Amino acid sequence: MPENSGEKFNDLGLGTKTSSDTQRSLNKDGSFNIEKINVPFSERVNFYHSLVTMSWIKFFVLLVSGYFFANLIFATIYMMIGVEHLTGISGITNAEKFLEAFFFSSQTLTTLGYGRIAPVGTLASSVAAIESMIGLLSFALATGLLYGRFSRPVAKIKYSNHAVIAPYKDINAFMFRVVNPRDNQLIEIEVSVTLSMKKKDSQQRDFFSLALERPKVNFFPMTWTIVHPINLSSPLINFTHEDLIEKNAEFIVLMKAFDETFSQIVYSRSSYKASELKWGEKFVYVIHEANESITVDVGRMDETEKAELNKVSV
Amino acid sequence: MPENSGEKFNDLGLGTKTSSDTQRSLNKDGSFNIEKINVPFSERVNFYHSLVTMSWIKFFVLLVSGYFFANLIFATIYMMIGVEHLTGISGITNAEKFLEAFFFSSQTLTTLGYGRIAPVGTLASSVAAIESMIGLLSFALATGLLYGRFSRPVAKIKYSNHAVIAPYKDINAFMFRVVNPRDNQLIEIEVSVTLSMKKKDSQQRDFFSLALERPKVNFFPMTWTIVHPINLSSPLINFTHEDLIEKNAEFIVLMKAFDETFSQIVYSRSSYKASELKWGEKFVYVIHEANESITVDVGRMDETEKAELNKVSV
Amino acid sequence: MPENSGEKFNDLGLGTKTSSDTQRSLNKDGSFNIEKINVPFSERVNFYHSLVTMSWIKFFVLLVSGYFFANLIFATIYMMIGVEHLTGISGITNAEKFLEAFFFSSQTLTTLGYGRIAPVGTLASSVAAIESMIGLLSFALATGLLYGRFSRPVAKIKYSNHAVIAPYKDINAFMFRVVNPRDNQLIEIEVSVTLSMKKKDSQQRDFFSLALERPKVNFFPMTWTIVHPINLSSPLINFTHEDLIEKNAEFIVLMKAFDETFSQIVYSRSSYKASELKWGEKFVYVIHEANESITVDVGRMDETEKAELNKVSV
Amino acid sequence: MPENSGEKFNDLGLGTKTSSDTQRSLNKDGSFNIEKINVPFSERVNFYHSLVTMSWIKFFVLLVSGYFFANLIFATIYMMIGVEHLTGISGITNAEKFLEAFFFSSQTLTTLGYGRIAPVGTLASSVAAIESMIGLLSFALATGLLYGRFSRPVAKIKYSNHAVIAPYKDINAFMFRVVNPRDNQLIEIEVSVTLSMKKKDSQQRDFFSLALERPKVNFFPMTWTIVHPINLSSPLINFTHEDLIEKNAEFIVLMKAFDETFSQIVYSRSSYKASELKWGEKFVYVIHEANESITVDVGRMDETEKAELNKVSV
Repeated sequence: MPENSGEKFNDLGLGTKTSSDTQRSLNKDGSFNIEKINVPFSERVNFYHSLVTMSWIKFFVLLVSGYFFANLIFATIYMMIGVEHLTGISGITNAEKFLEAFFFSSQTLTTLGYGRIAPVGTLASSVAAIESMIGLLSFALATGLLYGRFSRPVAKIKYSNHAVIAPYKDINAFMFRVVNPRDNQLIEIEVSVTLSMKKKDSQQRDFFSLALERPKVNFFPMTWTIVHPINLSSPLINFTHEDLIEKNAEFIVLMKAFDETFSQIVYSRSSYKASELKWGEKFVYVIHEANESITVDVGRMDETEKAELNKVSV
Repeated sequence: MPENSGEKFNDLGLGTKTSSDTQRSLNKDGSFNIEKINVPFSERVNFYHSLVTMSWIKFFVLLVSGYFFANLIFATIYMMIGVEHLTGISGITNAEKFLEAFFFSSQTLTTLGYGRIAPVGTLASSVAAIESMIGLLSFALATGLLYGRFSRPVAKIKYSNHAVIAPYKDINAFMFRVVNPRDNQLIEIEVSVTLSMKKKDSQQRDFFSLALERPKVNFFPMTWTIVHPINLSSPLINFTHEDLIEKNAEFIVLMKAFDETFSQIVYSRSSYKASELKWGEKFVYVIHEANESITVDVGRMDETEKAELNKVSV
Repeated sequence: MPENSGEKFNDLGLGTKTSSDTQRSLNKDGSFNIEKINVPFSERVNFYHSLVTMSWIKFFVLLVSGYFFANLIFATIYMMIGVEHLTGISGITNAEKFLEAFFFSSQTLTTLGYGRIAPVGTLASSVAAIESMIGLLSFALATGLLYGRFSRPVAKIKYSNHAVIAPYKDINAFMFRVVNPRDNQLIEIEVSVTLSMKKKDSQQRDFFSLALERPKVNFFPMTWTIVHPINLSSPLINFTHEDLIEKNAEFIVLMKAFDETFSQIVYSRSSYKASELKWGEKFVYVIHEANESITVDVGRMDETEKAELNKVSV
Repeated sequence: MPENSGEKFNDLGLGTKTSSDTQRSLNKDGSFNIEKINVPFSERVNFYHSLVTMSWIKFFVLLVSGYFFANLIFATIYMMIGVEHLTGISGITNAEKFLEAFFFSSQTLTTLGYGRIAPVGTLASSVAAIESMIGLLSFALATGLLYGRFSRPVAKIKYSNHAVIAPYKDINAFMFRVVNPRDNQLIEIEVSVTLSMKKKDSQQRDFFSLALERPKVNFFPMTWTIVHPINLSSPLINFTHEDLIEKNAEFIVLMKAFDETFSQIVYSRSSYKASELKWGEKFVYVIHEANESITVDVGRMDETEKAELNKVSV
């Protein structure tokens, strides 16, 4: 993570040229507005990535249709060999025979093997032997992926809809609020905030790493308000809301934590555009402390209220 | 981990307001006294987390009842199709037929497939084909979770019941003792201790990171006594036991280590309230060195004995 | 990672002696030109490593032939016991019987168990019981390896074919370009570049860690040009292209990143020889910014164009 | 890892008292000479740890006997229910019946299910349904452990049998040599060396972190000689071999690396006693550079030769 130094640097790995005033580098959900073209298919595609990140519906459709087509193919092969090499086939028409071959195939692929229908002779037995091996291997891949998807650590950190410019001690500060809605504990959470702004009279962007009041916490069981004090060394000093909108400012957030349930490092990212900034508001207090325990009202984490800003003269 | 600097900071991710004098931020077992409310179900629940952290009994009850109900559902489907589409059914009453359908279902779900009972006809065969696929997928999830639970790294670091204020060189020190009761080796163990105290005449809390004599060790094969020397820069200087109790002091401990068996980073946390502090006692020595090996008597790790504190004048 | 300090050190773990002028320490694909001899087999071989890194074709050939030979062995055992202990064998000649025993074995190894052929008697049943257990264990290993290979994180960072010496501000710089062709997001990417050069009048090599304009970026969604400014503290200052070729210079690159799909740290390495350096050229701009999104033309990432170098007088 | 600072500290997590002159803290294989006693069984034992670290022979004996006893138990249950509830039983004596029940159980536990023997009636079918579920779960654990053992990353770094005190520049140095005998690449290798010595006229030990010429390398494809220069700030300055033996000196080594095959951090540790030190010898050069590649003769890594030490006057 970059040190929280307010220092200016050229690049965040996001390019420095900008052509549009409303463009956003990072979408709210953490994805990038960037498309790579002319990448050879073999270099671009990683099947594991695709299979693990596609939607659950797509994944199951793929599984079921894969199962269906595999049985279709093997049923055809058994038909070509001749279903007389399968015992217990009782169908008379070709369609009936095909259906029985299809179900025999499904019983072989899943290594179910009722045996009511069973292969006789070298050719049918060979195909069945190969099919059961393919079945074991492909179901292992499918179930591995199923479990891999299920057990993949994904930080679901929830960001407040808006960031605010609120009074802070005797100056003001840029603030936003995050919460971990899950029951999973996150430990050693680090955060970095980078400000991207259009250079004056130029299509180039500048990036500033914003110094935070506290770039790291050990625990994260309640809401956490991340604070960048707008002191004399802040790049935000002397800017009005209109300035930031005009400069197409974007606050890019990267969080990193250790997820105790998954025993792994997780990342989360989001961004705030200048237009998502509430100037002169502060977050309402959502923590209620009862006698022996503390309650956090996550439902109100987006709520803000008017707050008079401190006058800071430079 | 925060540097061990005795420096004061506002927040540990645990909030700064406090309303009760006996409240504790962190329970002895490392869980938090904090409840999040109004979190939408879909954002709060992570099935993997729930299934991996529930008790073993609950997990097995879930498995067995899942297996039972799945068979119940499929048995009902086979009954609706008509058990005449299953060969080998010998029952006469509906109850008998249902039981046989139930067991046929169990033989299909586990891909056992004896074949004494086997499906005939398109409909029953289709249901069996689908059931065997569902069986493979769900047992893969179940067994993956079983293994995931079994192989999940959890640091079981054992903390002494009490912390002590004991003499240390020519001053005094806050000390507690830890041991890894397991045979697993922990490597590169880091520890941080944070002191939480109520502000004077306020409902706010202050947090102090306590400077440790040694915040990290490479190996952890025996007991380790963690020592915060109460020197002039310590926030504990000049405080009596009564002061700490009155200020509702809490020592929050976070440990981090690499578990060699699991090849993963593990965390452990606990806390000591002022009331769990023994003032003017020290831990008894529990290491016995024989000729060629060393013995650590873990059973006596909580034992302390009176020890006269050094007078420190400021 | 070494600090980017331009400091000279003796060794990169690559030895300091050199005997050939064209020798390269690190191949383009990141492998080393180094062979270890006289390592006892048991110390050298790690089966997991071999099975996970071999080609897919080799892996499948191994799987299929393992399956084939296991069935061959068990078929032989059943023949020795006598196929009369298997029900349902209909073959007359020994060859026919062997084939049926072979397929019975395959149905046992995969736990398919049609039951058309089944063992009778203690000996045949025992062998079948053992075979099914071996089958479960070996297929678990095979499918585990299959999934392990499939889900292994490998950073496929693409390096520009050539590095360039291009103008940079009012001096010049050593630059090369990298892109992540995959859809996987890489986060917190670190890079280190080490220059290896032959010492004057000696067979020894010197290693220099090159100071980079930016040794780390948070995100890597587009191309990234890595820049080593040739300022007064650079070891490249005052060298011509001919000097570098004569000194057998090699730029050794190590990249490290967190792969979000695999939730793991990945490494990538490559190298540029002096002969792969384009002197006085710069990379063409391949990023096209449309209204709402950005397009990166990866197909042109190797393209360079003439660029007049700055005169730097020392 | 501790900084390589030659600084003296009290403890390495290994205790500071010593009672025997020949005692060694760390065995050559990295295990500790330490026994913990009076640890409650439930706190001490971690089944995963035990099952993953036991020898392969023990593991397979456990697997096979587990399989055997499970079948024994279920066979007994089927006998108690009455084998008349299993179709296809042909045995006449109780022993024969028990054997058939035993093999039927094995076919159920592995979900093989030939069906030659199959359960009839509620009770036998229920037991079979439960057994097949237990079979799926236990074989999943067994095969998970099998694969977990197989794919567990273990750094097999090979240490030279002896360390040497050899001439180094115009002073002398403590050196030892390591090599990675495996084909796995290790990346970003860090090393720390700690010297343990008995205090004068005391049973206490002092620990010194030794400053290394190079505490980290990026790559480790050949042998690596780890060098602690005995300069004026070294705790070894002015000591003779006899001094070190008398002080029961022990050099404790901890190495840490990223294993590229397993995508995980691995640790290795070892130690050298003063008696395993060759005074006034140096390691022979084992790297042979041919035209296009480099050969490392690992078989000679322990070889040393006489080398006159530099006179260092303090």
